[in-house]
Amino acid sequence: MISTRLTDFFKIDHPVISAPMAFAAGGRLAAAVTKAGGLGLIGGSYGDADWIEQQFREAGNTRVGCGLITWALSRPDDKRHVFEKVVAHKPQAVFLSFGDPAPYIPHCMDAGIPVICQVQNMEHAAHAIDSGASVIVAQGAEAGGHGESRATLTLVPEVANLIARKAPDTILCAAGGVGDGRGLAAALMLGADGALVGSRFWASNEALVHPKMLEAALSSNGDGTIQSSVMDIARRLQWPERYGARVLKNEFTERWHNDLPGLLADQDDQADQWRAAWAEGNTTIANTFVGEVAGLIDSVRPAADILTDMVNEARVCLDRY
Amino acid sequence: MISTRLTDFFKIDHPVISAPMAFAAGGRLAAAVTKAGGLGLIGGSYGDADWIEQQFREAGNTRVGCGLITWALSRPDDKRHVFEKVVAHKPQAVFLSFGDPAPYIPHCMDAGIPVICQVQNMEHAAHAIDSGASVIVAQGAEAGGHGESRATLTLVPEVANLIARKAPDTILCAAGGVGDGRGLAAALMLGADGALVGSRFWASNEALVHPKMLEAALSSNGDGTIQSSVMDIARRLQWPERYGARVLKNEFTERWHNDLPGLLADQDDQADQWRAAWAEGNTTIANTFVGEVAGLIDSVRPAADILTDMVNEARVCLDRY
Repeated sequence: MISTRLTDFFKIDHPVISAPMAFAAGGRLAAAVTKAGGLGLIGGSYGDADWIEQQFREAGNTRVGCGLITWALSRPDDKRHVFEKVVAHKPQAVFLSFGDPAPYIPHCMDAGIPVICQVQNMEHAAHAIDSGASVIVAQGAEAGGHGESRATLTLVPEVANLIARKAPDTILCAAGGVGDGRGLAAALMLGADGALVGSRFWASNEALVHPKMLEAALSSNGDGTIQSSVMDIARRLQWPERYGARVLKNEFTERWHNDLPGLLADQDDQADQWRAAWAEGNTTIANTFVGEVAGLIDSVRPAADILTDMVNEARVCLDRY
Repeated sequence: MISTRLTDFFKIDHPVISAPMAFAAGGRLAAAVTKAGGLGLIGGSYGDADWIEQQFREAGNTRVGCGLITWALSRPDDKRHVFEKVVAHKPQAVFLSFGDPAPYIPHCMDAGIPVICQVQNMEHAAHAIDSGASVIVAQGAEAGGHGESRATLTLVPEVANLIARKAPDTILCAAGGVGDGRGLAAALMLGADGALVGSRFWASNEALVHPKMLEAALSSNGDGTIQSSVMDIARRLQWPERYGARVLKNEFTERWHNDLPGLLADQDDQADQWRAAWAEGNTTIANTFVGEVAGLIDSVRPAADILTDMVNEARVCLDRY
């Protein structure tokens, strides 16, 4: 067992949170992670109220949390009601990333729901701490899906220093690049109280991922990913410019990554093709969202097994020195 | 004390190698690191024979190694004689990075000199192992100076897996983002036998760095760096396109990073201005070479103190769990 401030705070067995990955992290995955002793999060992502309700139903009586993409709560239309409905579920935690969490934290605090704020740089870390986040997740660019440019290995200890100065009771997790027990142990060494794990749980039996995308990720090594904006243009998503998303390189990134104006000019056709490809798991055009830990993943397994092995391996690493 | 395969191999006290940083890592720094129980490397960089000779003299009788930028040994003119002169010094190790090490390894092996190959991706890692490197350094993009795109946190365990499969006796070090004991402990958890540390030793009393550049780095946090090619264009260095260099953002990167063709078109004037700025420590134009760990560095200190504190802090981290 590895006890940390994170396990104490959430009264969980293992210092691991599963990332609220858009579309992939449904109630089944979140519940499986919680049942195995971690904290599972539903990927509420862009705030599709019906989908979120469905996933809470899938999680059943298992206590899970829910993540939301913060900027998507206010654009294009006001989705505050979705946020409030999530809070009304009394989740274990509300997770906010990619935008200003300040407008949403007081409502959670009033409801007694801890807020986990994921940040990608020092300015946003300071703001999240000041806004009253219970947990800060420092996310490096090696993560799958959206992120910025800092690396986990340097961002985590720098945020740890900031927390020590500003608000020492704030809990810290590392995200980005943690795919096995070695990464989890490294996160603890860096000053984190635990890790948020995305890609490794993305490649689990319970995640909602097209089998062909899993296949593509399993056959790639860690060099096969790229952080890009092409898939957001293809999906007509209004992501703020500072965020790119890490995906497997493919013909689509090859063609458009260095020609965003060209892609925008051809957006109608490209968007149609991309969405069709996504639906059928055509990984030549649609992009597989996975982080650099793709190179450490060689099988799709039950989430509980992934978590157990990760924690056991971390223990072995920690005991070695 | 932290004993690893690295400390056994080089018969050193601490699993830390100081990076052979171009221009900054002279004989004084290398000797200070070796005397303090690590392994110090002279930054032989682009192969300036006179400068390298001078630095070996500065190191005196202290046993140090020497690094060379591999592509620079063959371009623009053949500098094999520089390489051979380095080997003739019987250094503790020859360190090769940024190019194909294969043509240089047999000569070192014949002379009984271990070769340390720094790599930035899986293909180059496999090639370096196959070519007979004694030590592989897996370098992430958070590193100061030149690098590629992979992050240390995922590259190190992936290379560790490769070594386990291909050549289990090969030693592995992590580079990029290791600036204190937390980073060193994390590197060990990831499966490395030690760490190669650049930026933290760059900010030491013994490094050859303009005081104004140290000042700029100390006042920056980790968000203040960027990986770019503008300074190589300004210096007319023929770096292969795959490598950028991490430096502090400044007016020069702001102006040119997204307009390399414009910089090339104005190269004569810009090169003159950049070199003059470098000489006088004008950090508005000349770029300060430092990694993301800039945010973890708050003072310039003797290299021995840096090393001692790093190892002691790593011990504390390792003992915590």
